[in-house]
Amino acid sequence: MSISHIEHVGIAVANLDEAIAYYEGTLGLKCYAIEEVTDQKVKTAFFKVGDTKIELLESTDPEGPIGKFIEKKGPGVHHLAFAVDDVNKALTDVEAKGVRLIDKEKRKGAEGLSIGFLHPKSTLGVLTELCGEE
Amino acid sequence: MSISHIEHVGIAVANLDEAIAYYEGTLGLKCYAIEEVTDQKVKTAFFKVGDTKIELLESTDPEGPIGKFIEKKGPGVHHLAFAVDDVNKALTDVEAKGVRLIDKEKRKGAEGLSIGFLHPKSTLGVLTELCGEE
Repeated sequence: MSISHIEHVGIAVANLDEAIAYYEGTLGLKCYAIEEVTDQKVKTAFFKVGDTKIELLESTDPEGPIGKFIEKKGPGVHHLAFAVDDVNKALTDVEAKGVRLIDKEKRKGAEGLSIGFLHPKSTLGVLTELCGEE
Repeated sequence: MSISHIEHVGIAVANLDEAIAYYEGTLGLKCYAIEEVTDQKVKTAFFKVGDTKIELLESTDPEGPIGKFIEKKGPGVHHLAFAVDDVNKALTDVEAKGVRLIDKEKRKGAEGLSIGFLHPKSTLGVLTELCGEE
């Protein structure tokens, strides 16, 4: 598997509007897209920082993954997404090296990208996403 | 304040050797430096991923900040560091916007960079570092 860069850092926030105001007004970044990802029960806001994005995630449902995360741990960094050429091949590669997968095959995520998640129990506590065009 | 990119993602790990083996052997990244930062009570390992670094942090003392973090939350993402031109000016800027600072002035961090931390209570739960040559 070849990782080219960190595609994005996913950050769980309690309130998307308040978080956008902080990232724009205090940190000086610019939100370029807001998107609801229905099957993940989140509303997302994207910022570009160098070759990486920040993806803010507000839960649209307390029973969704971000709702549960915030209830357990509070707002903060939720996951890291690494950019790879071919998500299915990368998932197969890391599984062969003993990583437990959340997604056995790629699925569609925000911004139309292919994504697959690795289980944080296999990745030293970091919920890890592999992410790519393919 | 102008942020050019994410300088690094700091990740707390229980065992640095085991973590380096995972980031190299499973994710295919290459560790290019190991450094002990005595005043932070950590041993660090660095990987370059695009224009961002991953900084793995193993505590050298259970009473140090990483030791306490792991005891409370377990291993995982510990902080995000944004690259800025002038750390002192950036600290002054965000303080004027209501951010509580951990470091009132820049100090020396790993790799000889100037660093200053913002308090996670002011940054929506993300322990945030500002980092630069100046």
